[in-house]
Amino acid sequence: MRIIILRIGHRVDRDKRITTHVGLTARAFGAEGMLLVGSDKSVVNNIQDVVSRWGGSFWVTCCTDWKQELKGWKEGGGKVLHLTMYGKNLPDVISGIDANKLMVVVGAEKVPSELYDLADYNVGVTNQPHSEVAALGVLLDWLQTGRELTKDFGGKMRIVGKLTGKGGTTFE
Amino acid sequence: MRIIILRIGHRVDRDKRITTHVGLTARAFGAEGMLLVGSDKSVVNNIQDVVSRWGGSFWVTCCTDWKQELKGWKEGGGKVLHLTMYGKNLPDVISGIDANKLMVVVGAEKVPSELYDLADYNVGVTNQPHSEVAALGVLLDWLQTGRELTKDFGGKMRIVGKLTGKGGTTFE
Repeated sequence: MRIIILRIGHRVDRDKRITTHVGLTARAFGAEGMLLVGSDKSVVNNIQDVVSRWGGSFWVTCCTDWKQELKGWKEGGGKVLHLTMYGKNLPDVISGIDANKLMVVVGAEKVPSELYDLADYNVGVTNQPHSEVAALGVLLDWLQTGRELTKDFGGKMRIVGKLTGKGGTTFE
Repeated sequence: MRIIILRIGHRVDRDKRITTHVGLTARAFGAEGMLLVGSDKSVVNNIQDVVSRWGGSFWVTCCTDWKQELKGWKEGGGKVLHLTMYGKNLPDVISGIDANKLMVVVGAEKVPSELYDLADYNVGVTNQPHSEVAALGVLLDWLQTGRELTKDFGGKMRIVGKLTGKGGTTFE
């Protein structure tokens, strides 16, 4: 299973933290990398900094043309899932999603209406308004049936978690 | 099952959007309400506005003393789960969590160290750095085994989602 994220609609002046959360969630939950439409070095640097300390091979690449990226992905045999509250609710469609090679499109507030037609799947994590970050986390968890939560990133920094009291950090 | 959120460490100048996402995720995924430590009318108004249009009975209440809220909850027979990357990883502890009456504490970047000792459960959704919004979504989904995703909110606004093309909004 290969999953990449396409983040569209990022506004440099107001979406830095949310887009960073999208990228870090994608990484923590087993996606391979994130294409960020637009250019925002601070977001890229923040995510790359986490990768260098916490491990794994997650990448972030800025790009300019979402439609070209999406079409190229489909021409390479990949499927495109657009995460949107206007999509079919996840429990109703999970069994029919081909996640072998999947691009997950995560929009900021407004997305081009064309995207709904270009996507193979428009999927909502509920049809209620909430957060693309939570929706992405739950989607990735369902697609990988929880296996992603125990992935070993092999990083220099690791946490040994504790149920009672605070867990500790180890450094290699 | 009763679940409420205690949001601590909210900084009015920089956490408005993330705290709003926390609240909306809590609502969409079946929590009863959110206690927000501190005061931020714009966050409260944004969430209440969603409730008034999209339905349900989710509440948001500002409070001043996190420790008093937490202790009062425990005295009333509730359990406290602190969501933290320093906790035990969710898959390792899910079966032992008593979620009959549960307060989920969601911190911003720094939390008082005392919290780790006062919580019944310190739980991470992975031990990797990512997003409290994604972590909350996945936690609530695991606690309710996905049932929350099909909750009917009975709101004035509803979306009829579509897998191909854009779903529609209906108004009562």
